[in-house]
Amino acid sequence: MFRKHGLSLSSYATRLRLFSTSVRIQASRSIIYTQNGQPSDVVRALTTPTLPSPPPQTVNLRFILSPINPADVNVIEGVYPSKPQPSSSPEVQGDVFVGGNEGLAEVISVGEGVKGLKGGDWVVMKASQLGTWRSAANIRSEQLLKVPRFDGLSEVNAATMMVNPATAHCLLSHFVTLEKGQWVIQNGANSAVGQAVIQLARNAGLKTINLVRSRDDIDMLRQELEDLGATHVVTYDELKDKKAIKAKVKEWANGQDIRLGLNCVGGESTTAMAGLLGIDAHLVTYGAMAKRPLSLPASLFIFKNLTAHGFWLSSWYKDNGKEQIKLVEELARIMASGNFKEPRHESL
Amino acid sequence: MFRKHGLSLSSYATRLRLFSTSVRIQASRSIIYTQNGQPSDVVRALTTPTLPSPPPQTVNLRFILSPINPADVNVIEGVYPSKPQPSSSPEVQGDVFVGGNEGLAEVISVGEGVKGLKGGDWVVMKASQLGTWRSAANIRSEQLLKVPRFDGLSEVNAATMMVNPATAHCLLSHFVTLEKGQWVIQNGANSAVGQAVIQLARNAGLKTINLVRSRDDIDMLRQELEDLGATHVVTYDELKDKKAIKAKVKEWANGQDIRLGLNCVGGESTTAMAGLLGIDAHLVTYGAMAKRPLSLPASLFIFKNLTAHGFWLSSWYKDNGKEQIKLVEELARIMASGNFKEPRHESL
Repeated sequence: MFRKHGLSLSSYATRLRLFSTSVRIQASRSIIYTQNGQPSDVVRALTTPTLPSPPPQTVNLRFILSPINPADVNVIEGVYPSKPQPSSSPEVQGDVFVGGNEGLAEVISVGEGVKGLKGGDWVVMKASQLGTWRSAANIRSEQLLKVPRFDGLSEVNAATMMVNPATAHCLLSHFVTLEKGQWVIQNGANSAVGQAVIQLARNAGLKTINLVRSRDDIDMLRQELEDLGATHVVTYDELKDKKAIKAKVKEWANGQDIRLGLNCVGGESTTAMAGLLGIDAHLVTYGAMAKRPLSLPASLFIFKNLTAHGFWLSSWYKDNGKEQIKLVEELARIMASGNFKEPRHESL
Repeated sequence: MFRKHGLSLSSYATRLRLFSTSVRIQASRSIIYTQNGQPSDVVRALTTPTLPSPPPQTVNLRFILSPINPADVNVIEGVYPSKPQPSSSPEVQGDVFVGGNEGLAEVISVGEGVKGLKGGDWVVMKASQLGTWRSAANIRSEQLLKVPRFDGLSEVNAATMMVNPATAHCLLSHFVTLEKGQWVIQNGANSAVGQAVIQLARNAGLKTINLVRSRDDIDMLRQELEDLGATHVVTYDELKDKKAIKAKVKEWANGQDIRLGLNCVGGESTTAMAGLLGIDAHLVTYGAMAKRPLSLPASLFIFKNLTAHGFWLSSWYKDNGKEQIKLVEELARIMASGNFKEPRHESL
């Protein structure tokens, strides 16, 4: 299992490689629940018998790595807007839900009519909430995406690309076209998405201003984020002196308007961050760690032509199948080039 | 002078027809100020001698009607972001500013090289803050827009189209493409823009839900707005019972998503209004009568894909000269058809 650091809602990923056999059609061990609730109360392991050969249009998979993301916990709690489809199992009464949304799997065998996938290929989940916390599965091929096995692409990066780096990539590219040397400001910069934003922005030649909470080891955190490519790191406390921070940002950006702000926090500090944006800027909300609304003065909208958007990856995936294929290739390429650090992790 | 009813910042328009002579080149009487401040303190009348013949590319105008809009007061106070250019006058020391942004004028004569305008034509101001509170002026032709003199187009409607109806038209057409039978929700529905929204929406076959403050004569106001074409009128008090109003709106719209919200108020009631919007909706802020920020839960952005915009007509005019010509023609056509009621007014 691996555990990322520094998220207010902790983000961690489990490594399930319970059956490292070479048996091609294998038994499956899954992490399941039958009703919503606290994961510690409702989640349990289930072993099911050997899977049948994959039926037509279906692929037999062995999961290599199955991360745990914060939203997975919300799904188990029943408070997330996107719900998994139940399955059934002779061993369990009623509906069975397999946990997990993200995962890297290897194709073991393919059923009749499956095109573009063969044994040994790597795949990630195209459809959401398929249930990835299991050692093996038969999944319809249209619900999978092939990951190019570029030299240098690690299992950990491939397994964790489809939620956080994918979100970061969409945030940086869907709302405004930025050119090399232009600026992005983000809060929650130490979150998994925030760290991916820093790295993808650096790769694209963009500059970033990164807001984080103050803490005892702030210098260490500052250094870590700068090592990832952060141009500047600013604490929410420093943001409170509006005049000083405005002057600083103006100096850093050399008077250039900042046209993209990324928000996963909300509340007062986000209002302050929005005040640092320039004319015709876009503020994209993709999280609400502070659990407070986004509060923005009308003048930003009217006189500075601010546009405030939201981004939800699950919804984007649902509507943009073809773009998803490009996204996987692009992320795999960047990660394979060595320009994208693996998230901190522990393996189970 | 005419005075509209029911605005929290009162909106009224002055009729200046101080020289109803047929003299082609005439003396000009203007409402001017030389420094910012309360209009009652700083504004005064000035009579200047007969204007010279219009120089090349310039048009001599007689103003027919010169409305007073709330923003005109803010300009005089010096608190509006768009500033007029000063002029000078031998009668007055220092910079002279002529009040007024909107007005209908008749072309008296044209200077050399002026194309597309001739004596007797009606014009409105293309450029902003030209100073319209005067009886006559020489203005460069590229700063003017010809208004087609369609049968049935009244002077009052022509004189007041370029601020409030123009804003309403842009609000209804720039942010989302709505089809006949679709819904718009707006607050400040009794403002000058709000009333224009009701009428233009009705003309376009759109349905409107209109939020207003409760008052003693609410039934009268309700009737007035319904007479203009309002589909439903709701008070901010009725908005407080969220469950009831959601059920009502769902019933009215027959489950259809409301995809456009127009906001000139801000504060809590706007948050409640935003909650009535459906998936993929656009909330456009063009005013802030409540002088409180727009506060929106992140979930609206993330899970309902809300986009929040601002709209500022002056800025749009600056960037969209060609579109402005179409806008004037479109509004003149609608007004001439008798489907647009004149704003209430008093003439001076």
